[in-house]
Amino acid sequence: MGPEGSFSEEAARLSFPNNAELVGFPDIPAVISALGHHLVDAAVVPIENSIEGSVNATLDQLIHDEVPPPIVAELNLQVRHHLIARPGTGLSDIERVVSIPIAVAQCRKFMLEQLPQVQLLPALSTSAAVQSLVHSVRIAAIGNQRAAQLYGMEVIAPDIQDGDDNTTRFVVLGGQPAASTGRDKTSICCSIAEDRPGSLMAILNEFAQRSINLTKIESRPTRSGLGKYFFLIDLEGHQSDADVAAALEGVRGNSLILKVLGSYPAAGD
Amino acid sequence: MGPEGSFSEEAARLSFPNNAELVGFPDIPAVISALGHHLVDAAVVPIENSIEGSVNATLDQLIHDEVPPPIVAELNLQVRHHLIARPGTGLSDIERVVSIPIAVAQCRKFMLEQLPQVQLLPALSTSAAVQSLVHSVRIAAIGNQRAAQLYGMEVIAPDIQDGDDNTTRFVVLGGQPAASTGRDKTSICCSIAEDRPGSLMAILNEFAQRSINLTKIESRPTRSGLGKYFFLIDLEGHQSDADVAAALEGVRGNSLILKVLGSYPAAGD
Repeated sequence: MGPEGSFSEEAARLSFPNNAELVGFPDIPAVISALGHHLVDAAVVPIENSIEGSVNATLDQLIHDEVPPPIVAELNLQVRHHLIARPGTGLSDIERVVSIPIAVAQCRKFMLEQLPQVQLLPALSTSAAVQSLVHSVRIAAIGNQRAAQLYGMEVIAPDIQDGDDNTTRFVVLGGQPAASTGRDKTSICCSIAEDRPGSLMAILNEFAQRSINLTKIESRPTRSGLGKYFFLIDLEGHQSDADVAAALEGVRGNSLILKVLGSYPAAGD
Repeated sequence: MGPEGSFSEEAARLSFPNNAELVGFPDIPAVISALGHHLVDAAVVPIENSIEGSVNATLDQLIHDEVPPPIVAELNLQVRHHLIARPGTGLSDIERVVSIPIAVAQCRKFMLEQLPQVQLLPALSTSAAVQSLVHSVRIAAIGNQRAAQLYGMEVIAPDIQDGDDNTTRFVVLGGQPAASTGRDKTSICCSIAEDRPGSLMAILNEFAQRSINLTKIESRPTRSGLGKYFFLIDLEGHQSDADVAAALEGVRGNSLILKVLGSYPAAGD
């Protein structure tokens, strides 16, 4: 997902270090569609950030795709934002800053302290923001190191993100399902009958009674009206493990729809 | 929340029909901060959309505010997007469309069928997008009727949103807590001890065993690392109802943190 110089490109390089050919797509639906049409063998997409939460575009593609591509791996990547400008630009020269709203939000402290008066301009990606510096002066972008290199720009203030714990979780979609390693996670998506007190609890109970830990639970709209949701649940274990398989069978009996999105080795911390 | 011509302004007019003075703020943190500093008596902010899901900026303000302002009312508003341009502009004249990414996403079908070749430009709000039309030609914005009126523009294609069920839920923050009406909702935010299988289930069980229906459950990052979440739960009933009060007491015993965000009359469908 994303053009050269995006964080997703970095995740793809780390996921496929051995000379895989990387192809960029403009947005998440385009990546997953390319995978569905066999234009690529696998896709690397962001799914969650430790500050911003879930990447809804990715979740919604997996939910609304009738046969979603399997999740076969996950990868956590620390996000580092830099202030980037034309070589020779100083902080005091900057009148405008261009980036995506999320990146600006993640650098709020730096912006308030160092550049309180600048005008903010929106962009479609951090990479596009850096690229746009070519056309004008007295402007800086928030982006990453590789984008700065790609477009001949300079990092004028490194690591301007708030706090230290800004991590994005990526997943690899497509290709061979991953076998059980003994330290796995499984992602599922289910919907339940509405207005039945305790129906979500019945599902969670299938895991609790088998001491299966849930690492995430998230709701997304079904798009058929306010108050109707799909639940996305990540749990510890592989769908081929006996207790996980039994729990999933129980969940199926309590769900209108159940999709097992994949089992894959858990990323290290 | 938002400038004149935004959907939030429309929600504020409907929430306070009797001559309340409306004051616009540029973003959700600014609105809630103004309320905290007593610059305004109440705030109207979007919290959820039937297609896009939760408005994370609002949830995060309520979660991370130490004493968040109480939710005292909710309101559902149908979203209608129009294609807006200078008077006299035809569809075939349009080379560029400006709006916020969410609005463009909600009009995907119209854009693909009627304007497949246009260049998309980002804006900070639908209202700002309409305002920007003043400066150039061969450009249209996606926004609402009131923004078109405000800036002397014309709706050249009405109701271009995908499907019919695009509803945004707003909440009113601040002022007097709402008394029980017999048809209420209560919103809470809690965090649980990590890595304890079934700890979330213990919380949900407090509601299930009393047949209290949950209308929403959502997770948001605590910002202290991937995999650590706050849960936001909406349930049927008022915190002064005996069974809800007992359930909340039980939840408190199973939570690291519990904040009751407010009880308020449930909006009609």
